[in-house]
Formats: sequence, structure tokens, C-alpha cells
Amino acid sequence: MSGVAFLPNERLLAWREMGRIEEILNAAGKLFSERGYHATSVRAIARQLDLQGGSLYAHIESKEEVLFQIVERAAKRFAAVVENLPEGGARERVCAFVRGHLRVVVEELPYATVFFHEWKFLSEPYKARIRELRDAYEAALKELIEAGVREGVFRVEDPDLAAKFVLGALNWVYQWYRPGGRLGPEELGRVFCPLVLGALGGEG
Amino acid sequence: MSGVAFLPNERLLAWREMGRIEEILNAAGKLFSERGYHATSVRAIARQLDLQGGSLYAHIESKEEVLFQIVERAAKRFAAVVENLPEGGARERVCAFVRGHLRVVVEELPYATVFFHEWKFLSEPYKARIRELRDAYEAALKELIEAGVREGVFRVEDPDLAAKFVLGALNWVYQWYRPGGRLGPEELGRVFCPLVLGALGGEG
Repeated sequence: MSGVAFLPNERLLAWREMGRIEEILNAAGKLFSERGYHATSVRAIARQLDLQGGSLYAHIESKEEVLFQIVERAAKRFAAVVENLPEGGARERVCAFVRGHLRVVVEELPYATVFFHEWKFLSEPYKARIRELRDAYEAALKELIEAGVREGVFRVEDPDLAAKFVLGALNWVYQWYRPGGRLGPEELGRVFCPLVLGALGGEG
Repeated sequence: MSGVAFLPNERLLAWREMGRIEEILNAAGKLFSERGYHATSVRAIARQLDLQGGSLYAHIESKEEVLFQIVERAAKRFAAVVENLPEGGARERVCAFVRGHLRVVVEELPYATVFFHEWKFLSEPYKARIRELRDAYEAALKELIEAGVREGVFRVEDPDLAAKFVLGALNWVYQWYRPGGRLGPEELGRVFCPLVLGALGGEG
């Protein structure tokens, strides 16, 4: 008898349902990232899972809810990068940010792609929730940059534009990165970190 | 009698047709950039122009041809940035590249958006043609960077990744730029140029 069979029935069901939702989000994330949200039907998502279109609604409320869950998951993984920054000087913290951010982009490529491209198709209140997470994340990078300016290790005219510049350079990786290529996320972070420090007016 | 009326009939017709195609590309560019290529029907493009869907086919061959023309136009405007770089040192040339690239992104926002997002939906031989233009453009930036390394004004470990980094930082502007805001393309170039020079290991 497997360990799972000892779970009380309700927990077992919730466990199975979580796995099912995970599968749905992965299938939808792949399709949304490849063809876009509007061009992907609930039927197409179901087909990926060998389900009837209608039976998907036993697990999800709407296609938009699926989009929201994908985008929110990506947003939370990015937020965790900021929450887990090491103590230390601004240079070390910015480099840890760069490495952590690139790891999310690379490890969650379809989710990150949907986060970057498709979040704008959310309606309220979903959209406001995601905008809040995005703004907080960008503000956190801006504060890292400002801390470095106060420490005297960065020279930046406009920390807001500098944060947008750095995020753009990091995010764009999703456009050309192919898993299994010569570059892992660690190597990418190693090369990108001095580029970012240099942009911020520190020694690369 | 207007000057235009003196044109020979054939040239007049070609002239009018050019204007009509321009209108079609602008309408399609707006829709593709807002909702994506796959989610935009020929009927929706026609509706923007107060035309019947079918009558659009008097001017265009297919929706994909419209996508190709939009993407190619953006690619050629970017290519012109490289063709029109001033003579001079690598620092001046990189900054001219930054300003020129940002000007295209900002002035052709819907076209640039479609170029960044939707080109992947082209089929061959369209796709190969655009890939060629994209690769040549990125290679030109890489050469600018390498020239700066030879001159001793840049320090860059991996010129290929550095070019991708810079292009990402510049391209990402399409995600947040809103025409009519506080930043014109000139001001944006003024702030971004030292960020790029710094990233490349030169003095910002």
C-alpha cells in the first residue's frame, strides 16, 4: 500500500485536484506562450490533456482565470527573488537579483513569456492585482539601485529609467533563450552581472 | 486643378493604391499589436477601414502577407539606423545606434511591437527573410561593440551576449512607453546612452 493511500479522502482529493490544475496550467501556459491568449481556446487546452472541452470546467472557472493563475504564479516567483536577496552591499544584492531573475525567466520560460506578453489581456480586478505585483517588483529594483547610489558604488541619473533598462535587458532573454543550449542560467548570470553593474556606473 | 491630377493615369492609380496599402498596414499593425496576429481576422482589419472583408483582397494577397509587410517595414527602419551611423569612434557610433534604435521603437510603436511579438508566426520563406534582417542587425551591433574593444574604449567578455543585452534593454521600451508622456525619444536616448556605454565597460 502506498503512502498516498493513507491520506484522508478529502486531502487525497485535494491533492489530486492540485496535480490536475498544475497540468492544466502547464498545458495552457505552453499554448498561450506559443500562440497567444486570444488565439487559444479552452477546447485546445483540453485537447492537450486528452479531455473534452466541457469537462475542463470541472476544474477551472474560465479561460481568463487560467491566464490569471499563470501570470500570478510567474509574478510570485519573481517576487520571491526580491524576498530572498542576501544581506550585503548593493553590488552583491543587484547581482543576486540578476541571477535570480534570469533563473525564473529560464526555468519558467512559458510562464514568463505569458507574464510578459499576455497579462495585458486580463480584465479587472485581475489586472490591477498583477499591476500591483509588477510595480512592487520594479520598485524593489529601483530601491536596490538607489541604495547603491547612496553607498557611492553606483552613479545613475534616473533610477526609475535605469531599473526599466535593466529589467528590459534581463527580460529579453525569453526571446532568444533555448533550453539545452550552451548557456545555463548560472553562466548567463555570470556574464550579465558585470553588464548590469557597468550600466549602473559601478565597475563591471 | 491639383498637381496630382497631372500624373499619368497609371502612376495616379499606383499612387492611390500605395496610400490604400499604407492605410491597411496601419490598421492591421494596430490590431496585431493590440490583440496579436492569430486573434485578428481579415474581417476585423476591413472593419477598421469601413470595408467589406472580401474587398480587402483586392489590395492584399493574404493576412500573412500583411504581417510580412509590417514586420519587413520595421526591420528596414531598424536597418536604416545602422546604415546611417556617423563616422567616428565606437562610443559615438554606439550612442547614435541607441538614439536611432529608440527613435524607431517610439515612432513606430505598433510596427515595432508586431516586429518583436508576431514575426515568429510567419511561415517560410517570409520567416527566413526576416531572420536574415534580424541577424544582420544584431551582428552590426556586435561589430560596433567589437570595434570599441579594439579601440580600447569598451571591455566586454562576450560581445554576442552584450549585443543581446543592449538590444533587450532598448527593445523593452515598447512595453512601457506611452506617446505623449514626459519622455520624447531624444530625452530617452540621452538617458539610455550612458547606461549602454557603462554596460560595455566604457565610462557612462
